[in-house]
Amino acid sequence: MEKIKVAIVGYGNLGRGAEKAISLTEDMELVGIFTRRNPSSIKSNSDVYSLEDILNFKDKIDVCILCGGSATDLKVQGPEISKNFNTVDSFDTHAKIPDYFSVIDRSAKEGNNLSIISTGWDPGLFSINRLFSESILPKGETYTFWGKGVSQGHSDAIRRLDGVKDATQYTIPVEEVIERIKNGEKLNLTARDKHQRVCYVVAEDGADREKIEFEIITMPDYFVDYNTTVNFVTQEELNKNHKGMIHGGRVLRIGNTSEGIKQVYEFKLNLESNAEFTSSINVAYARAVYKMRSEGKIGAITVFDVPISYLSPMSPEEQRKKLL
Amino acid sequence: MEKIKVAIVGYGNLGRGAEKAISLTEDMELVGIFTRRNPSSIKSNSDVYSLEDILNFKDKIDVCILCGGSATDLKVQGPEISKNFNTVDSFDTHAKIPDYFSVIDRSAKEGNNLSIISTGWDPGLFSINRLFSESILPKGETYTFWGKGVSQGHSDAIRRLDGVKDATQYTIPVEEVIERIKNGEKLNLTARDKHQRVCYVVAEDGADREKIEFEIITMPDYFVDYNTTVNFVTQEELNKNHKGMIHGGRVLRIGNTSEGIKQVYEFKLNLESNAEFTSSINVAYARAVYKMRSEGKIGAITVFDVPISYLSPMSPEEQRKKLL
Repeated sequence: MEKIKVAIVGYGNLGRGAEKAISLTEDMELVGIFTRRNPSSIKSNSDVYSLEDILNFKDKIDVCILCGGSATDLKVQGPEISKNFNTVDSFDTHAKIPDYFSVIDRSAKEGNNLSIISTGWDPGLFSINRLFSESILPKGETYTFWGKGVSQGHSDAIRRLDGVKDATQYTIPVEEVIERIKNGEKLNLTARDKHQRVCYVVAEDGADREKIEFEIITMPDYFVDYNTTVNFVTQEELNKNHKGMIHGGRVLRIGNTSEGIKQVYEFKLNLESNAEFTSSINVAYARAVYKMRSEGKIGAITVFDVPISYLSPMSPEEQRKKLL
Repeated sequence: MEKIKVAIVGYGNLGRGAEKAISLTEDMELVGIFTRRNPSSIKSNSDVYSLEDILNFKDKIDVCILCGGSATDLKVQGPEISKNFNTVDSFDTHAKIPDYFSVIDRSAKEGNNLSIISTGWDPGLFSINRLFSESILPKGETYTFWGKGVSQGHSDAIRRLDGVKDATQYTIPVEEVIERIKNGEKLNLTARDKHQRVCYVVAEDGADREKIEFEIITMPDYFVDYNTTVNFVTQEELNKNHKGMIHGGRVLRIGNTSEGIKQVYEFKLNLESNAEFTSSINVAYARAVYKMRSEGKIGAITVFDVPISYLSPMSPEEQRKKLL
């Protein structure tokens, strides 16, 4: 069997996770890691190349997994790389997904490529469970809760602020509210009622801490709609206590199929490494992109457009026999 | 907007559930209920017709939802009706799915129709979660647990035995085993280790109870691989204590994305009416069948072949904006 040839673009937490996830598959091989940094500075047993050289690999890569962050990397890399390669990314700024989708749809079609955007677990698996449960139980309420866990997107957004050296952000669900929902209460909740955000920030020497704190708590999309606490800590303290990548969460839908008949649909994740789990999802969707492109599909798609069958290395017959 | 025209074939628990589920949609209308019984004997506010007359509705029905049981009804109705209509069914004898798929694939293609088999929650949603979690976490173990709850398929299988007037079967998970798995133990479990089956049976007057008990506990696919207890009760007792349709269960996958990093994927249902929930899934898949047939797809498919997007009445744009 010819293996699916995959490239990793960007070698942060997600890139390293993708490298591990590809090594656990039998139907995919890693062509190489492409980085904006000096390739010789990257510690990896895989081949590492400069991102500037990626066009030399046009016929050697089936799918590129874009492992950059949404806040700045993907906005640039998404359109550029999807012009030349099939891509998978985990763009996670929910509010900007429709715009990003349009941009990628245009660039991918221009290059005759297929690009899936916003894979991962939220957006991604959680989105799928929201859509599933609302389609099945049209009369009901859906609740998404995250954490307790570290949000990479939010930590990343803080780290990009002027004067910030390092940061970790925890998303913490309000447990009392989850209990009330499970007891059948119908609550109309704002983002603020459901979660709080707690940030641990290492400031650069001489940085204006009040300014940093203000920029965090007023940051659109990321923090402004939540109760946010900012704690300044030393790098040592951050390294010691806040460098894990635990995360998790749940999608809950409480529906009624007839008067007085309650149906509870729950999807739940408990992750010891958010980045490795997200990357594992991206790698499964790289397989799907390869298969769908082979059938002629081009443009931008999302997890909503992919038949689940395409995520598996098994044949459809084997899937029906073993897993249905 | 033209509504999707749906027919219900069979008016037991699933048929009544489908009738309610269709009434909760805005994009579907119920053409009628088709029954093998005398239509005037059916209590419903919907139009009821004899199943014998269904071919007169060839141009009036987009999708038929087959609400019969797997043990006998669907084996006959599936092939016959899929020759003439697009169909949805919840064929649930896991071991026989590959054969049933082949039969329906042939009959549906013969009639230029599209038929989805084995929708519901298991097979169905649980199958999807097994496939998803194994594709994302190739290194790990998947566990499916059911109950405590009433299995309609198993109760139905008992009721079809000679000498049985009525019956209810409870599937009960072995809680101790679930705890051990969640604590990280890797267990190689047989069906027998995970669940027990407890049956409440009303025998006909003068029936051979020992023979009934023997036929239940040795029944292939349904009971032979489990510890099964058979209790004979009066119809009054069954009606009073065992006529609810509660059910539920979970799919659990414990995976490792790298050495020592554990990821827990969990999908869980708590249902006050198994039949109504199953029917709600069937109705959502009727929508998907209609859309996929409109795009030219024919033959047999399963839940693995359906992009999640097709289950929702929302447009793809609306889905991306509101649920991704």
